[in-house]
Amino acid sequence: MTKKIPLVVIVGGGFGGLAAAKALRRAPVNVLLIDRSNHHVFQPLLYQVATSVLAPGQIASPLRGLLADQENTSVMLGNVTGIDSATRHIIVDAGDREGLRVAYDYLVLATGASHSYFGHNEFAHFAPGLKSLADAESLRNHILTAFEEAETEENPERRKALMTFVMVGAGPTGVEMASAIAVMVRTTLRKNFRRIDPKSADIILVDMAKRPLGTFAESLSEAARLRLLELGVDVRLEKAVQMIDAEGAVVGDERIPSKTVIWTAGVAPSPAGKWLGCDVDRAGRVRIRQDLTVQNHPEIFVIGDTASLDQDGRPLPGVAQVAMQQGRYVGKSVFRQMTGKSPLPPFRYFDKGNLAVVGKNFAVLQSGRVRMSGFLAWLVWALIHMQFLAESSLRFSVFFQWIWTYLSAQRGDRLIIEQRENT
Amino acid sequence: MTKKIPLVVIVGGGFGGLAAAKALRRAPVNVLLIDRSNHHVFQPLLYQVATSVLAPGQIASPLRGLLADQENTSVMLGNVTGIDSATRHIIVDAGDREGLRVAYDYLVLATGASHSYFGHNEFAHFAPGLKSLADAESLRNHILTAFEEAETEENPERRKALMTFVMVGAGPTGVEMASAIAVMVRTTLRKNFRRIDPKSADIILVDMAKRPLGTFAESLSEAARLRLLELGVDVRLEKAVQMIDAEGAVVGDERIPSKTVIWTAGVAPSPAGKWLGCDVDRAGRVRIRQDLTVQNHPEIFVIGDTASLDQDGRPLPGVAQVAMQQGRYVGKSVFRQMTGKSPLPPFRYFDKGNLAVVGKNFAVLQSGRVRMSGFLAWLVWALIHMQFLAESSLRFSVFFQWIWTYLSAQRGDRLIIEQRENT
Repeated sequence: MTKKIPLVVIVGGGFGGLAAAKALRRAPVNVLLIDRSNHHVFQPLLYQVATSVLAPGQIASPLRGLLADQENTSVMLGNVTGIDSATRHIIVDAGDREGLRVAYDYLVLATGASHSYFGHNEFAHFAPGLKSLADAESLRNHILTAFEEAETEENPERRKALMTFVMVGAGPTGVEMASAIAVMVRTTLRKNFRRIDPKSADIILVDMAKRPLGTFAESLSEAARLRLLELGVDVRLEKAVQMIDAEGAVVGDERIPSKTVIWTAGVAPSPAGKWLGCDVDRAGRVRIRQDLTVQNHPEIFVIGDTASLDQDGRPLPGVAQVAMQQGRYVGKSVFRQMTGKSPLPPFRYFDKGNLAVVGKNFAVLQSGRVRMSGFLAWLVWALIHMQFLAESSLRFSVFFQWIWTYLSAQRGDRLIIEQRENT
Repeated sequence: MTKKIPLVVIVGGGFGGLAAAKALRRAPVNVLLIDRSNHHVFQPLLYQVATSVLAPGQIASPLRGLLADQENTSVMLGNVTGIDSATRHIIVDAGDREGLRVAYDYLVLATGASHSYFGHNEFAHFAPGLKSLADAESLRNHILTAFEEAETEENPERRKALMTFVMVGAGPTGVEMASAIAVMVRTTLRKNFRRIDPKSADIILVDMAKRPLGTFAESLSEAARLRLLELGVDVRLEKAVQMIDAEGAVVGDERIPSKTVIWTAGVAPSPAGKWLGCDVDRAGRVRIRQDLTVQNHPEIFVIGDTASLDQDGRPLPGVAQVAMQQGRYVGKSVFRQMTGKSPLPPFRYFDKGNLAVVGKNFAVLQSGRVRMSGFLAWLVWALIHMQFLAESSLRFSVFFQWIWTYLSAQRGDRLIIEQRENT
């Protein structure tokens, strides 16, 4: 008599979903990983694609390739639109086929987050964010095109607006984007134009908080702020963005004419909470239990940016490390249930530390009691990021690209490619 | 008294336009290069982007970067819409600014060619071609998505159509695309799917002619045909394509259901002839004189795929070598006029030979009396193409990518990236 092999459906091929899939490699289950895109993206380096340092292919790997040798696992390109937890099915649109019902025995929701405009969804059209490769490519096209248009623009006010770049939100993404643009105008673009001087671009970083990188120690925020000023970034703190439209942004009570406003502030979780109709926190993230399952559904796990779990009285941050550790925990947990072993102890996040880059040769690092800023922190950042890039082929390619960009100030992928509509 | 420095306007940053601009590096003129895109593309390798071997950034360089150190030259991103040859102005749309008038003293039109559907423009929507990076990226998305959809498709007929790839036209591009897809399904994609077998894909190459690669010697056409058969490509000769729609193509009197039809047949010149209102050949290419100028306009040069010139009673072919040699000739010619030297002798094309790749390790080569097919020809192909890639950074990157793909069967850029609409 053959026993039916249980199916673990994982939704989302980000850090959490991929870690869960890999942890089930030797488990006596079948695994189906569903994602809207065909690739895993190394999100912490998206800003380098947006600023033309790296090519999209250098920070992304096809999910099928990553899991090709894992024979119990298949991959499906599809868009989940709902969950029927009573009959244990998810509802998926895949290609031309809508409303496909896929049965699961275990379900892992690792569906991440998108941008939150804090109730101002009308900003979205004028201030795109940076979550996917498509976002990063669009932003790259947009930034490069702004300089192209500035070069032919006769009207000085319009030229100024084309050469003004506003980042809304001074977390790691905002700081990294602002400093990367600052480095780009001073190095790569320096000799490329005849009528404009890219160096004269205005790069403005805005936040409501008192300091940038609010999740870091105050001394590191200050080090980052000083470095940003050195790079020529105009850092405006304790200022709220009142309005964003096609002509720019209103920051505090000042209107800043700008053709490039980039949203690096809030994130909003995926609709996993709505699909499940379960308890969510204020931000909309699914409240999960210490074993990462949902109340009354021991077969449904929710992990990463779309989950809400407190540890020592504070909610876990929405970072890659949390998602990866949770993904591995879920894999192990299912594995133990399948093999009749005792359950795992409750999940505990181990914080290895935080890093943020500020331009060339400079990063801030906080890990346990260690606080570090400057070149050494930047070296640590480069080493860690290379180690984490999912495939060895990517690792080499990024390494050589960085050395090349570092030495030559040439960038890897300074292309404007506007796709035609798909047929 | 200062003399006004003459302005040479070059339209098009392909092989011809770029060669002309570089040849004017030390000339006592100002040069303005206008192109619709911000980069020069190495067109002979576009098929490798479409089949995920190379990333777009590996075969394209920003024009501004290529000409950054050439101080008499500036670059403009713009779309030429007309020419007023009486007052010596071109009309350009650049960014938000339409109908900009740019005065020239010399004009070089190197505006290339697009696809010709031989009077069947309704085919264009269903059978895209391969002329730009955007074309290649769209095709890459399309081919990869077809396999993704086939993996979830239950209906065997629809699955078959998703896994059928039809190339219309057995010139170098058609042969290279067909053989590259054949290699891809047998190597890279081999272990990636669970429900479909990529190897079972139908790859069909259609042409009206009696043999593929009609510009090569018959013995080489036959070698290529045999190699294509070995790779599993279904080569259908002396067959006309009657119809192409969303469901496939009608070839001869057979309907081939296919979700991917790729147009690799005819090319149509740019509208340069219409802009000038001058004498054109049957295909619409501008008839030029032996010094590459247009009748009655010694200040207007037309070169490359958009020009028509006979040599020894036969029209010059539309290949990169002709465009490059003509570009260099124009640069020298203007240089000599500026420095009061005697005019150049009439232009003569020196044919260094032709190459086409058929899958991995195999190419055909024809140069003077030399005819070669097989691995050695493929090595020559690889060396020549690397040498020609415009920037040294590209050269290294492509070299390592080829070695990596060759050894590991992994491809560089197997990503589906659908851009959102530009804001």
